[in-house]
Amino acid sequence: MTRFDLNILGCGSATSTLRHMPSCQVLNVRDNLLMIDCGEGAQLEMRRMRLKFSRLTHIFISHLHGDHVFGLPGLLSTLALQGKTGSLTIHIFKDGADYVQRTIDFFCRERPYDLQFNIIGTQPALIYDDDSIAVKTIALKHRVPCVGFLVAEKPKLRHIDPEAVAAHGVPQHFMHSLRQGLDYVAPDGTVVPNAKLTSAADRAISYAYCSDTMYSPRVIEAVKGADWLYHEATYGDECAVQARKRFHSTAREAATVAQEAGVRRLVLGHFSNRYTDDTVLLDQAREVFPNTILAHEGLTLDLNRVD
Amino acid sequence: MTRFDLNILGCGSATSTLRHMPSCQVLNVRDNLLMIDCGEGAQLEMRRMRLKFSRLTHIFISHLHGDHVFGLPGLLSTLALQGKTGSLTIHIFKDGADYVQRTIDFFCRERPYDLQFNIIGTQPALIYDDDSIAVKTIALKHRVPCVGFLVAEKPKLRHIDPEAVAAHGVPQHFMHSLRQGLDYVAPDGTVVPNAKLTSAADRAISYAYCSDTMYSPRVIEAVKGADWLYHEATYGDECAVQARKRFHSTAREAATVAQEAGVRRLVLGHFSNRYTDDTVLLDQAREVFPNTILAHEGLTLDLNRVD
Repeated sequence: MTRFDLNILGCGSATSTLRHMPSCQVLNVRDNLLMIDCGEGAQLEMRRMRLKFSRLTHIFISHLHGDHVFGLPGLLSTLALQGKTGSLTIHIFKDGADYVQRTIDFFCRERPYDLQFNIIGTQPALIYDDDSIAVKTIALKHRVPCVGFLVAEKPKLRHIDPEAVAAHGVPQHFMHSLRQGLDYVAPDGTVVPNAKLTSAADRAISYAYCSDTMYSPRVIEAVKGADWLYHEATYGDECAVQARKRFHSTAREAATVAQEAGVRRLVLGHFSNRYTDDTVLLDQAREVFPNTILAHEGLTLDLNRVD
Repeated sequence: MTRFDLNILGCGSATSTLRHMPSCQVLNVRDNLLMIDCGEGAQLEMRRMRLKFSRLTHIFISHLHGDHVFGLPGLLSTLALQGKTGSLTIHIFKDGADYVQRTIDFFCRERPYDLQFNIIGTQPALIYDDDSIAVKTIALKHRVPCVGFLVAEKPKLRHIDPEAVAAHGVPQHFMHSLRQGLDYVAPDGTVVPNAKLTSAADRAISYAYCSDTMYSPRVIEAVKGADWLYHEATYGDECAVQARKRFHSTAREAATVAQEAGVRRLVLGHFSNRYTDDTVLLDQAREVFPNTILAHEGLTLDLNRVD
């Protein structure tokens, strides 16, 4: 299994509490760390979860509300103090890039790493692509411009069957082609079908992050068929009107999105500070979509284990 | 006793750790809260220490390094979300005021409270004055412009001796004059000396905050005779050269300041993240100035109890 973990650093809403930190999570993709949103205290939660600063390469910011960005100045300063090298790219709206650049130029002039900005827009687009994953933005519906992120693993390589390969005398240099699905043609012209030499690749997993947003059919469309959906569930049923007014979702609406989009697992987050026990939100969501769990600070999910 | 407490919210240095938060403390002066420095996470520590957001009226920022200011945007936003009213004044250098104003105007436009800035300079000056206390800046010696704060209680009123007052028939309306130290002149012209009617007022306490600074005789001069001195002790003896190079102090230097200034108690803080056990710093300081304690997050000191 190739590593694809989701670490929850913060899953509270705007007003931080002693139970929840503001929004922040870190994907560990083959030991490359990608952060999504960066609420105040993100750097401390990274330490708490033993996520290495040196492995952080990209930060994706969904929108420019303080509870999703106020951790950036401190984190970027600490990365400099820790002597991080290489590059760090922040995917963010233009105004956010200006804010971060100004702040960090004033407070943290000396940076051993290369800070880059990738200016994103509200139109869905591919914003990141490497050998393992691609990240696309999702148009969300919030009070201010806001996007979600769909992180999709690239198709994986098939598994070699060592005994079959030995029996057919397949040379070492052909192994990568085998893993890609090619048939083996022996020197005498015999074709050995790939299926006889390999077994199926692991499933390529996809993860959708949707916070902050009100219920919207276009979100359902965008996350259709995703394996994992993290969706905000700021409120319970009793605050459905307030949820709509403030462009947030109830837990039941989050579950409806999961249900309609046919995702495999739903993770609820972005809980209002009014709830001292988030299981009320879980219960309401599970009435619609049973395969739902609650996020909490310190939670690490192996995204490969979707069942 | 009138309330005069010091709450330590953060006493780490630039790199935050799981043991220490960045610089922040709150003085409780007769239930009026005054914050000194505001490192990332200050709002969370306020909650942890049950300090009421509504009672916060002034924030004093010593200098513009991130570990002393990055908590401001989140705190100011939360105050707005919590519906704080009245006014809040930030005492800060000009560049800092510009940074905070820009940040908060972008991220937190709607504020039910009135945000004011008092622009301070590096020259020692009286920057705050009310019925209970006065706050003066102290010129510190750091890499960037930096001041400390001397918070001094005003002289307190004498205590009425109820029996003596009754025996001499002093009328009710004269009590405040008595507490201020005036003699009582009876209708028949008899003078009753104040000392027969009252006992001494409680001591007016002073508290000096000095972080960040290297050892400097002018700091000693400024804190001379203070009851309490909070002084940075970033390093131990083995890092004396580094301390000087980075314009910080060792614990021993902090103790020397306390000793030379003749303060009554020393509180050490701003510990480097290199120390997993700060008592090494305490031990070195106590060799010079025995009446020393270590700050730690969550510590509340009743400043009236200086002995």
